[in-house]
Amino acid sequence: MSKDRLYIYDVTLRDGAQTQGVDFSVDDKRQIAEALDALGIDYVEGGWPGANPADTEFFSERPALKKARFAAFGMTKRAGRSVHNDPGFAAVVNSSAEAVCLVGKTWDFQVDVALGIPRSENLEAIAESIAAVKAAGREALFDAEHFFDGYKANPDYALECIKAAHEAGAEWVVLCDTNGGSMPSEVHEIVSEVLVEIPGIRLGIHAHNDTEQAVANSLAAVEAGVRQVQGTLNGLGERCGNANLCSIIPSLMLKEPFRDTLELGITTDQLKTLTRASRMLDEILNRAPARHAAYVGPSAFAHKGGLHSSAMLKDTRTYEHVPPESVGNRRKILVSDQAGRSNLLARLADAGIDVDAKDPRLSKLLEDIKEREHLGYTYDGAEASFELLARRVLGEVPEFFEVDRFRVIVEKRHNSRGELTTVSEAMVRVRVDGETYYNVDFGQGPVDALSKALRKDLGKYSSYLADLSLTDYKVRILTAGTEAITRVMVESKDGKGTRFSTVGVSENIVDASFEALVDAIYLKLLRDGARP
Amino acid sequence: MSKDRLYIYDVTLRDGAQTQGVDFSVDDKRQIAEALDALGIDYVEGGWPGANPADTEFFSERPALKKARFAAFGMTKRAGRSVHNDPGFAAVVNSSAEAVCLVGKTWDFQVDVALGIPRSENLEAIAESIAAVKAAGREALFDAEHFFDGYKANPDYALECIKAAHEAGAEWVVLCDTNGGSMPSEVHEIVSEVLVEIPGIRLGIHAHNDTEQAVANSLAAVEAGVRQVQGTLNGLGERCGNANLCSIIPSLMLKEPFRDTLELGITTDQLKTLTRASRMLDEILNRAPARHAAYVGPSAFAHKGGLHSSAMLKDTRTYEHVPPESVGNRRKILVSDQAGRSNLLARLADAGIDVDAKDPRLSKLLEDIKEREHLGYTYDGAEASFELLARRVLGEVPEFFEVDRFRVIVEKRHNSRGELTTVSEAMVRVRVDGETYYNVDFGQGPVDALSKALRKDLGKYSSYLADLSLTDYKVRILTAGTEAITRVMVESKDGKGTRFSTVGVSENIVDASFEALVDAIYLKLLRDGARP
Repeated sequence: MSKDRLYIYDVTLRDGAQTQGVDFSVDDKRQIAEALDALGIDYVEGGWPGANPADTEFFSERPALKKARFAAFGMTKRAGRSVHNDPGFAAVVNSSAEAVCLVGKTWDFQVDVALGIPRSENLEAIAESIAAVKAAGREALFDAEHFFDGYKANPDYALECIKAAHEAGAEWVVLCDTNGGSMPSEVHEIVSEVLVEIPGIRLGIHAHNDTEQAVANSLAAVEAGVRQVQGTLNGLGERCGNANLCSIIPSLMLKEPFRDTLELGITTDQLKTLTRASRMLDEILNRAPARHAAYVGPSAFAHKGGLHSSAMLKDTRTYEHVPPESVGNRRKILVSDQAGRSNLLARLADAGIDVDAKDPRLSKLLEDIKEREHLGYTYDGAEASFELLARRVLGEVPEFFEVDRFRVIVEKRHNSRGELTTVSEAMVRVRVDGETYYNVDFGQGPVDALSKALRKDLGKYSSYLADLSLTDYKVRILTAGTEAITRVMVESKDGKGTRFSTVGVSENIVDASFEALVDAIYLKLLRDGARP
Repeated sequence: MSKDRLYIYDVTLRDGAQTQGVDFSVDDKRQIAEALDALGIDYVEGGWPGANPADTEFFSERPALKKARFAAFGMTKRAGRSVHNDPGFAAVVNSSAEAVCLVGKTWDFQVDVALGIPRSENLEAIAESIAAVKAAGREALFDAEHFFDGYKANPDYALECIKAAHEAGAEWVVLCDTNGGSMPSEVHEIVSEVLVEIPGIRLGIHAHNDTEQAVANSLAAVEAGVRQVQGTLNGLGERCGNANLCSIIPSLMLKEPFRDTLELGITTDQLKTLTRASRMLDEILNRAPARHAAYVGPSAFAHKGGLHSSAMLKDTRTYEHVPPESVGNRRKILVSDQAGRSNLLARLADAGIDVDAKDPRLSKLLEDIKEREHLGYTYDGAEASFELLARRVLGEVPEFFEVDRFRVIVEKRHNSRGELTTVSEAMVRVRVDGETYYNVDFGQGPVDALSKALRKDLGKYSSYLADLSLTDYKVRILTAGTEAITRVMVESKDGKGTRFSTVGVSENIVDASFEALVDAIYLKLLRDGARP
C-alpha cells in the first residue's frame, strides 16, 4: 500500500516567539532554522519580515537550509488598498523566502468586529492576496484564523473564505484553532466536512493548547484527512502554547493508524535526534527541559516505582509505550549497564574519540559522568567538557598549568565626578612549568576580569590563546534560592570559527564560571597540540 | 433533558506521589485531601495503606472530608493465597477508607510474563478480591491495568478480566492506559466495544500522558460513555504524568458536548477555585506553577502581540476560548516592544494601578519602557519591576533608602588544611533617614553575600524584610561575549507565598543582580505600606 505524504510546517520562530519570556536574536533564529532543517522538517517559517527589526534582518539573508522550504509569514492585504500599494504586504511577498503564509479572517464575528469591513471585502482581500503571492512566484499558504470558531458560528461564510484562498491558487489552506478551545471530536467532524470542498493534500491544521489538546486536535485532523501539521518545538507559543511537534512527530511515525498509512520527510534516523533538537531549544532559551514532556522529557522514560522496575527487568514493554532510543531519549533506571555503555560509545565517537567497547576504562568514565551529573553537571550541551573528561580518564590530558588562587573584587562607588560606577578587578596566580605568574586585570564584570587576568600571561601557552574568544555565557540555578548550586555554561570560539561549550558547577557563580573558563582553555590547548 | 452524573476520582496522593522528586508528608496529604474535597472532587484516593509508613500513618485516621469519598488503593490478592491469608490485602480492605480500588492484570502478556501464573488463576484472583472488598462493606473499584494494550493483544481475555470484576460486584471498572501510549480514536473505539458488556455508569478511564494525550484520551472515553475519570491535580505522575484534572474538569464543565449532557459534583463556584487549588499544590511541592498550563497556568490568558491586544480590547472572545474568571484565573496583558498605549493601560490595570487614558504621564512611561527595553530590560516576566517603574513615573515611590556603595570579594585559595576553598564577602553602605548603615556579610556566592549584607540592617525597614526570600535567579547574556549586557531576573516570595519577579540589567552581573535585589526590596516595602 502506498503511503500518503504528510508535511510538517514549523512555526517556532514566529508563533513560538510570542511565548512569554521568549525573545530570539537573529543568531538564535539562524541556529534553530538550521536545526529544524537537519531534523527533516518540511517548512521552516522564519517570522514576519517587516514587522520588527530582528525579523527583517533575519530575512535579509536566507538561512542555509538544505532541504526545508523557507517561509515568511504575513497578513492578507489591508482592505481598501491594492496589493501593489501595501508596503507591509510587499515586504512579506518579496522576502528571501520561497513560501509565503498569509493569515486572514474566516469568522464572521471577527470580520465584523475586529476588521469592521463588509464580509465580501474580506473575501476579495483573501483572493487577491493569495493571487499576488502566486504572481510573485512563491508557494502560497493561507492560515484560516479562528476557522473552527468561525465554522461553528457560520459554516457557509467560513467555507467561502477558505474556498476563496483555494481557488486563488493557494497550495495549502491551514485550518487554525486560534483560541485553542476546540475539542478533538469537533475538529474531526469539521475537517471531514471541509474535505468535501477541498482535498486533504491542500489542507493543514494549526492547533493551540488551551485545553491541553493541541496534539490530539492535530492528530484528529490528520485522521480526518489533512496532510500538513503546523506546530512548534517543545510546544512553544503564546498562552498555553502551540501544538507540540516533539509529541506529534513521534506519534505520527511510531503509532497506528499513522505509521502504516503516512510518510513524513523525517527518517527514523532523524527521529533519533528529536530529543537533542528539543534540548537545543531549551539551551538557547536558557530553560531547564520540561521534565515530564512526552517522548523527549528527561523523565519521559524514568521509572520510580519498585513494582515497575522489577517488571521492567522482565520486559521493557510492560511500562514503555515506545523504545526511548527511537526518539533519542534514554531510560532512567539501569536495566543493564548496556544502555549507558553503548550510549557512551556513541558519544565518544561523536567527539572523535576511538575506544574499544570492552575497554575497562569505560566503566570508570561512566561512573565519573554519573557522579558529576548527580552534582549538577550536564554534558548534553557541553561537548567540550565531556571530551575533556573522557580524555582525562583515558590519560590523554596533561596538566598544562595549575591555578593556585584567584581573587575577584566588584566595587560600586562614586567616582571623582560624583557618578556611581562599578569596577571589576581580578587577580589570578597560576603555575606554568614550575614558574609562578601573578596576573591582575580589569573587566566589564567579574567573569570578564577573571578571564582576562587568567589569560594575560600563561607563559608558553599565551600564543595558543590569542584567537580564543568567549561568545556566550549562561547561568542556571539548579535548586531554589541564592544558596543553590549554580551551573555555568561558557561558549567559546577559536580563530577558525569553531564553537565549543564548557560547563562549571559550584555553589558560587564565580567559581563555576572559572571552572568553565579553565576547561575552555584546556580544550583549546589540547586541540591545538600544545605540550606541557 | 436530564444530565448524566459524571464522577471525578483523584489519584494525586497515590499516582502523583510516583512523580520524580515528589515526596508527600502525611501533613501534605491531609492538606491536599481537604483541598480536593473543598473543590468538589467525588473520590480522594489517599494511597496504599501498608505499602509504606507514610501511607499507613495517613490511613490511620480518616481525613476530615465533608463530601468526597475516601479511597484506599491496593492490589488484587496474591495468586495461590486466600484473601484471608494475605496481610497486605487485609490492610487495604480494612483501612479507614470507605472505597477500595484494586489494580489487577488484564493483558495476557503481563499475566504470562510479570505474574507468571495461568490466566484462569488471574481471573479467580480478580473475582475473589472484589468479592472480599464487597464482603467488608466497602465500595469496590477495579483498576484494569494495561487494559488498552491488553485489549489490542487479546480482546477476549481482557474482557473476561473486567467482566470478572464487574460480576463480582465492583461498582466501578476503571480502564487504565498504563503505558500512556494509546491514541484517542483507539480509546473511543475500545471503550465503545466494552460498553456492549458493561454499562457506562460502571466504567471509568485512567490515562497517562506519554503521548501528550491523557486529557484527550479521558475525554474520548467520556464521549464514548464512561462515567468516571481518574486523574491528578496539575497532571502529576510518573514519567509524563497522569491525566490532568485541572484541564479535564473545566473542559467537561464549560465545553460541548459535555456541558449540556453531563453533571459533575463540582459547582460553577467551586470551578472558580480551580486555579487556587492548582497553585496550592505547587506551593506544597515548592515549585513555580507551570506557566503555560491550560486554564490554570499564569500565562494561560496572557496576550503579548500588539495585534491581539488591540483586538482583545474590542472583544475578549477574539482571543479567549473561555473567560479566565470561570476557572479563577486572570487575564494578563504583557508589555513588550510591541507595546502600545492600549496595551500599557491594560497592563497597568492588571497591576492595580488606575490611570486615566489621557494622563500625559502615560507617554513618559511608554518612552521609559521602550528606552529600558532597548537597554535590555524586559517587563514581560518581571511584573514587580514594571509596577515599580510605573509607580515611580506616577510619583508614588518614595526613596526608602539610598545605596552609597558596595564591594564584593570572591576569593579562591588554599585553607589551612591545604584545600582549595572559595569565600564570598560583601560590604554594603546604605543611608536610611540620614543615618548610614555599613553592613558586611558572607554568602555562598557574591549575590547571596550582597543580598545578606544589604538586608542585614536596614534600620526601620528590617522588620518588613524578615519574610522575604529569594526563590529563583536567572541570568541571560543579551549580546555575545563576556563584555556583553547581562540581564538578571530574581524571583522573590513573601510570607504569604506571593511570588514576584524583578529585573536588573548591567554590563556587570553583580551590578545587575544588585539592581534586581533592590527592586524586590522596594516592592516589598511599597506593598506592605512602609513609610520613609
